[in-house]
Formats: sequence, structure tokens, C-alpha cells
Amino acid sequence: MNENETVDFAGFACPIPKSDYTNVLLAHGSGGKLTHDLIGKMFVPQFRNEMLEQLHDGAVFSVGGNRLAFSTDSYVVNPVFFPGGDIGELAINGTVNDLAMCGARPLYLSAGFIIEEGLALDDLWKIVLSMQQAAKNAGVLLVTGDTKVVDRGKGDKIFINTSGIGVVDAGIDISPGRIKAGDRIIVNGDIGLHGIAVMSVRQGLEFETEIRSDTAPLNGLVAEMLEASREIHVLRDPTRGGVATTLNELAGQSGLGIVINEESIPVRDDVKGACEILGLDPLYIANEGKLLAFVSAGDAGKVLQAMRRHPFGKGAVEIGEVVDSHKGTVVMKSKIGGTRVVDMLTGEQLPRIC
Amino acid sequence: MNENETVDFAGFACPIPKSDYTNVLLAHGSGGKLTHDLIGKMFVPQFRNEMLEQLHDGAVFSVGGNRLAFSTDSYVVNPVFFPGGDIGELAINGTVNDLAMCGARPLYLSAGFIIEEGLALDDLWKIVLSMQQAAKNAGVLLVTGDTKVVDRGKGDKIFINTSGIGVVDAGIDISPGRIKAGDRIIVNGDIGLHGIAVMSVRQGLEFETEIRSDTAPLNGLVAEMLEASREIHVLRDPTRGGVATTLNELAGQSGLGIVINEESIPVRDDVKGACEILGLDPLYIANEGKLLAFVSAGDAGKVLQAMRRHPFGKGAVEIGEVVDSHKGTVVMKSKIGGTRVVDMLTGEQLPRIC
Repeated sequence: MNENETVDFAGFACPIPKSDYTNVLLAHGSGGKLTHDLIGKMFVPQFRNEMLEQLHDGAVFSVGGNRLAFSTDSYVVNPVFFPGGDIGELAINGTVNDLAMCGARPLYLSAGFIIEEGLALDDLWKIVLSMQQAAKNAGVLLVTGDTKVVDRGKGDKIFINTSGIGVVDAGIDISPGRIKAGDRIIVNGDIGLHGIAVMSVRQGLEFETEIRSDTAPLNGLVAEMLEASREIHVLRDPTRGGVATTLNELAGQSGLGIVINEESIPVRDDVKGACEILGLDPLYIANEGKLLAFVSAGDAGKVLQAMRRHPFGKGAVEIGEVVDSHKGTVVMKSKIGGTRVVDMLTGEQLPRIC
Repeated sequence: MNENETVDFAGFACPIPKSDYTNVLLAHGSGGKLTHDLIGKMFVPQFRNEMLEQLHDGAVFSVGGNRLAFSTDSYVVNPVFFPGGDIGELAINGTVNDLAMCGARPLYLSAGFIIEEGLALDDLWKIVLSMQQAAKNAGVLLVTGDTKVVDRGKGDKIFINTSGIGVVDAGIDISPGRIKAGDRIIVNGDIGLHGIAVMSVRQGLEFETEIRSDTAPLNGLVAEMLEASREIHVLRDPTRGGVATTLNELAGQSGLGIVINEESIPVRDDVKGACEILGLDPLYIANEGKLLAFVSAGDAGKVLQAMRRHPFGKGAVEIGEVVDSHKGTVVMKSKIGGTRVVDMLTGEQLPRIC
């Protein structure tokens, strides 16, 4: 009965050579180089359209004269409950933030649950209550959903997909194409908290003070920032792969160079200590309540002021700038005056962090 | 740093009593009674809003004067390749159909992949090509995506979430509230194909002729139907739980009774035979290219004619009607003149069918 065209696989060789890898690796999900390889070769060319090719946190398009943003993310974090949050809160905040990074006001979210048979109903209930509270905090409505159950051993407690729709108001234009040499790079506070909070549970590490995830909805902060200036060129949340990977993506997409100053990057001492124990670099650790803003030099001060008035922007600082040299590359000036190239995350540093 | 309100779990007891069940069961994902129990008690009251409460295949809301439909579904079908389709095609068609059932023209889709470490890249490639072709056939663009990888043994090859956005044109109003006594119930062809295609592979059954899934995008068919009549009151695709479960949902939501005629329900002989072997009832088997339309008696003929001109509506027939008696209940008239109540799916008849 199906009268559609069917696919002749014979004519389409897999675009990744067998010599690279023949199976999906855990590192393909880490947000770093292998993730980019997979997405860039396997997915994007097959669904070619200008929205997908932006490789933004979400797609922006017009419907009936309104610009909408649309974003999706699946959450597979392990463990599902971690210091400072849980998979439910993370799933709401994550998609709210992806929409906010498009310059959109997030409005409506969907939730798709994939539950492993045997999940304790009490755990599901905690996750639902946490999503309810997170949606309320972010001012979004969860309007549609789906629930699937997989047999024991074919999932891992619960995976949650959230997708979301937001409105991009007139006059707002957030895109890597707007990045210019001289733009200041701002972060809204301490980096590395989410990744370390999750890893510390997984590794059974205990610190003097508990390191809690920074998961938070950033749409309110972004609204204040856009109120202060329309010279915000790009917003991006440094989740999987951390600040280093996000900056590398933006250096690549803008075709410009990025310089960051080690001294100005806010990292708490306990996070530094945990990173030393775990052999990790805070620049590559996932954040779930942080954003990077690229702002014209002239407006950076105004934007910083606006950010510091908001609870989620109190720790906002300038960490670097965009330059017209070493194009496509991120360079860090160290505290003692040296410089080094900061590459994208390679390998599987932190699987299932979100 | 998180200044949001936090959840005090102590004050909120789980709304499902421990005497019912304490853990999620496979049957909670089958689309039948237990799925409704879970969604109705655990999810809907916590996210109370009129869009979610419609319990439609998607949410419909206005943004800037345009009515949009928004829908989500996660696909966990096992096996991922089955006669007549695969998880990729299913994921595109399924969300296209959910939007079409809202009376919307599907426009943009997202794709969220949860891949088990070790999936053969060649299999992923086949799935991607299949999604590409399905998106082309349905006339939708895949505009944003996400890829996660979970460790071996914590997933099952690949799960795909698709969410989608469509536009509901002016004058179209598809909702259970419009169902009236006297409405005719139409199906667009043979039922039970998808479920049997998947089950036959899983059970290692072989039939003389291969039973192939009916997976298909129904948006083109729906457009023709709405062109023929605006007296189409409800559209619904009888996927998990089959025709029986969908009709029960609509009897409940409309507060009216439904009568179907066994003789007029199109079931192929090979599907009947397979159902006998498997001990299943075709009325409860999942479909992925079928829709049920509730149409005013006066326009049913016109709608049937329009459907039969479309490749996916050639087998369209009237199978029953809405009545003002036995409210909330579905009754079937048998071939030999008896009547029996047709209940919603109970138990876990066909887990992981979509």
C-alpha cells in the first residue's frame, strides 16, 4: 500500500570511512570532536536546510510573520538524582536555555519519557514534581507528552526528551554571523559545577562542601540582557564539552579567533580541587546554568551591569575577546603570561553528563 | 546560587496508591488502561493547562494570531528494522501523523537520538537515509536535533524522539468536543498491519506473504479530506492500543456512545490468521498509517470519496457511528447479530511496538 518512494541503500555509502570507526562509541555522545564528526557527516548533509545548518541550540524560522525558535534535547544523565538537581529539572531548564540562547522567550515544552521497566514509582513522582517546579520557575507550560516503557535492561531508569517552542521578538538577532573582532566574551558565573556535581556522585568522591549542579533557567537573565543591549551577537550555553568546546564551535562558525584570559575565568577552589583529583580541566566540564555572551565592546559594560542585578548573573565577568588573528582557533593567555591553544573536547571525558 | 523555589517532596504523596503498583510495569507503555492511569494521575494534574488536558495527539495554541500544533513522540520499536519500515521512517511518519490528526499542516520536525554504544554505523546510516526519505515524502523539514550515547546495556540500539510543529489553518476545528450523535466513523484501510509486521519478526513467524507495516505519512490524505469537508469533527490515528483503545478514548472524551460493525471493519485474511496464531484481536493491534475520522452524517459520503482518490485512502470505509446511548462505551455488532462491549486495551499485549 505504501506508494512513497523507498530508499535504495546500495547507492548511498556511509559517509564515515570504516577505517575511522564502524560502531557508535560512547565518545560520540560527549559533545566534542566525535559528536561533531557524527553530526556533521551523518546527519546534517542528509537533511540539508538553512535552519539545521546553523547548528545553533535551536532552529529559528518564521510562521505567519512571527519568528519562532524550536529546540530539542534528550536527557540521559546518570545518576538521575545528583547534588543540586535531577533529570527532570535538568530536562526543563536545558530546553528553556536552548531557546533562550536563540534569543527567544520560551513558551511551550513537550516531554517524552522513556522509562525502564521497574523504575520505582516514587522516583518517577519526584522527577515529575521537580519538572513541575522547574516549569513554574521558568514560566513555561508543558503542553504535550509521550510515555514509553522499555524492558528491564534495555534502558536505564529514565530518559527524558524535552522539545520547546519560543518566540523571538522583533529586533533580536542572535547568530554567529554577527560576531565581530573586538566583541567581548562574558560568562555569568563559576564554571564546571554541573559536571563535577554529577561526576563526584558517580566516582563516590566526597568534598568538604557538597558541589551542587548549577542547573537553572536562564531565560529571565537573557531577557534582562536583551533589555540592556541589542548588541548581544551570540548567546550559547556551554553544556557538554564545556566552555572550551563551545568557544571552539563559535570560533569555527564565525571564522574569527578567540582569546581568553585564564585569570579571569571564574572557577571555584573546590571545583579546581575536584578537577585535579579527577584529572579533568574545568574548561571542558559541562555547565547547566551558564551562558557565554558575545557582546560589542561598547555595550559590554551595560550588559555586565544588567547581568549582575539578576540572581543567575551575579558572578558575571568578562573572560576574553574576539580577535582578527588565529582564525577558527581559541587561545588562552595563562596567568604567568604564556599562551596555549585550547582545543575542542576529544574523547569521552564525561559520558552521560546531561 | 539557585534562588528558585525548591520542591518539598514531603508534602506531596505519590497519587498512585502502593496497593496498585510500586514500580513502572511494561504494560504502562502499551497505550492501554495502565498508560492512561499513569498519565492521568502522575502527569496531567501536575502540569495542569487546557492544552495538555485535551489529551490530543498534540497541543494546539495561538502564537501571534497563528494557530500552531505541537506534538512529541519517542520511538523505541523492537526490532528497529521490520517488514515495511524501520524506526527512522516510523519516527518521521508518527509525528507527522500526530500533527495531521490535530488538523495541522506539519512543517518542521526535530530529532533526538539516544544511541546505545556499539550500534553499527551502517545501521545508523540506513536509519538516517530512511528518515531523510520519509521527511521528503511527507514534505517536512528536520530543522534541529540532538544526539546522546548511552553505555552498552543501558539502551537498545537506538531510540528516536521526534517533535513537530504544524500550522492549523483558519476554519479548521478538530476536537472531541465536536463529536455528535449521528457522526459516522471512517477508517482509511486495513487495520492491524504494523503491529503484526513487528510481532511476526519478534516471534519468528513466517507467513506465505510477508505482512508489512502500514507506516505512512497521512498529512496529504488529511489535507484532501479537509478540502472536501469542514464537518470532520475528530481525526485520530489508532497506534498503540489499536482501534479499540482509540475509540474508547473518544467515547470517554465526547461522553457519547460508539457502535461499530464487525463486518465492516477491514482486516486482511493474513492478519486475521496471524492474530489467531498469536492469540491477539486485530482491534487492539497498532497501526501506523491509519486514521479514524468522525464526520457528520451529511458529509461522510463526500469525505469517503475524497479519501478513496488518495493512495493512502483507497481502502476507506465507514465502520460505525456515534450514538446517544451507552455513553462512554464502545459496542460492536457482530456478524451474527450479537453485540458486545469493546473495552480499552488492558495489560501489555504488545510492548515496544512503536
